[in-house]
Amino acid sequence: MIDLTLIGIGTGNPDHLTLQAIAAMQEADLILIPLKGAEKDDLAGLRRVICGRHAGPSTRIAEFALPRRDSADPDYLGAVERWHDGIAEAWQAEIRRHLPALSGKVALLVWGDPSLYDSSLRITDRLARDLPLRRHVIPGITAIQGLCAAHAIPLNRIGAPVQITTGRRLRDHGWPESADTVVVMLDGQCSFQALPPEGLNIWWGAYIGMNEQILDHGPLTETGPRIIDSRARARAAHGWIMDIYLLRRDPA
Amino acid sequence: MIDLTLIGIGTGNPDHLTLQAIAAMQEADLILIPLKGAEKDDLAGLRRVICGRHAGPSTRIAEFALPRRDSADPDYLGAVERWHDGIAEAWQAEIRRHLPALSGKVALLVWGDPSLYDSSLRITDRLARDLPLRRHVIPGITAIQGLCAAHAIPLNRIGAPVQITTGRRLRDHGWPESADTVVVMLDGQCSFQALPPEGLNIWWGAYIGMNEQILDHGPLTETGPRIIDSRARARAAHGWIMDIYLLRRDPA
Ligand SMILES: C[S@@+](CC[C@H](N)C(=O)[O-])C[C@H]1O[C@@H](n2cnc3c(N)ncnc32)[C@H](O)[C@@H]1O
Ligand SMILES: C[S@@+](CC[C@H](N)C(=O)[O-])C[C@H]1O[C@@H](n2cnc3c(N)ncnc32)[C@H](O)[C@@H]1O
Repeated sequence: MIDLTLIGIGTGNPDHLTLQAIAAMQEADLILIPLKGAEKDDLAGLRRVICGRHAGPSTRIAEFALPRRDSADPDYLGAVERWHDGIAEAWQAEIRRHLPALSGKVALLVWGDPSLYDSSLRITDRLARDLPLRRHVIPGITAIQGLCAAHAIPLNRIGAPVQITTGRRLRDHGWPESADTVVVMLDGQCSFQALPPEGLNIWWGAYIGMNEQILDHGPLTETGPRIIDSRARARAAHGWIMDIYLLRRDPA
Repeated sequence: MIDLTLIGIGTGNPDHLTLQAIAAMQEADLILIPLKGAEKDDLAGLRRVICGRHAGPSTRIAEFALPRRDSADPDYLGAVERWHDGIAEAWQAEIRRHLPALSGKVALLVWGDPSLYDSSLRITDRLARDLPLRRHVIPGITAIQGLCAAHAIPLNRIGAPVQITTGRRLRDHGWPESADTVVVMLDGQCSFQALPPEGLNIWWGAYIGMNEQILDHGPLTETGPRIIDSRARARAAHGWIMDIYLLRRDPA
């Protein structure tokens, strides 16, 4: 049996790691570090730091390249499915290479929390078809919490709901009427531009938890253009960016 | 100057603590442990365990009773405001007693994450009116992440939004049309009963992260009645309960 643990590692600060995550790393026979995209080096660097500090004395560390999603494919969900198939094959190859007896503890370091806009759980579904697998999940600090902590703001108004959504969805569907607070992730395009800015406040953050962290907040009317500008400059400087924001609508 | 740090401690498992949280506890001159409600003893017990393991050698620990919210008050938001005023006074009294020079590092252990359905940030707004205060927030594992990790499920469908809401809101407003996934917190009444159960799946958990953890999941039609029953029994056995659930609607 293979015990596969998805370990949430938080969003860039190595001290986001929980004691539970550290214990799982120390017990692991094999830790998988997938490499992907433009942010490859910086993010792999963080994972190396974390493994260097916390992996057990006999833990093996395997870095491997992930296939890329075909972002030109107009069939978004289909392209994601095919991409996940490819990732599952890459994981499986690593597990078979390092644990040919198909027994032992495998850990995978997942950015943030494994439940939030992350494909690892869906990929383990695929793996479980081919490998004798028991799955475990260790929660980690999400970018949402990192954002709120950095700004020292509550996520919700008192007793009020919050919508978590994506940039694409905000562009296609506009403001979700059932909430006054909206958190937007996976947004490469400052999609808040699709909204009428009046009456909206934004709390924005990029590279949250990392040394490069940038924050801004204020009424969307004035803050939006400033964010578009600093986002473009930061992205050019680093070659990649990860950002997230919270929008709050004034009470009606 | 007083440096006041709200430390998210996770939701019941002492190993939810992050390295960042531990470092802040070790540096603190004073750690405040507010006691409240029926769960008082069990939850204060956890905080004592955490302080025993991680507080610094010269850290003082102050436990103090919180005022209770008047839950019979029909003016919900007004009652919450008055309750927060009372809590701010209680904190302030403790800080003045233990740090009469109004200088030093104060830490407050917050259940889960300080941003999520928690009043501590709003209470520090009040404190900042009377005390020279610098505020810091350290994120912690939320009950939402605990729920998803325990069930090994993703929070969201691929690229799809998620609504976080309360039991009261679910009863008063029904299903929020803009999302297919809804997480319900602060629900003392199994408010999923207010929804037509057809086409809904539920993942439920109580005492998540603790030894008493209970999980159930399945189609709401069959699982709902079972949850109502086990919730009532668990609540009677322990004298208190904390539970949370995720509802997912079948694709249309
Ligand atoms: C594929 S999702 C993964 C989310 C992750 N599982 C979590 O729990 O936060 C990536 C998105 O998360 C957000 N994100 C992750 N890390 C971030 C960081 N350090 N700073 C800002 N945004 C971040 C961005 O919106 C990014 O597009
Ligand atoms: C006042 S809110 C605090 C939430 C907390 N700040 C967090 O980050 O999870 C309390 C609600 O959180 C949920 N909750 C907190 N801890 C929980 C646990 N261990 N198991 C189940 N639900 C929990 C319940 O819905 C409860 O009504």
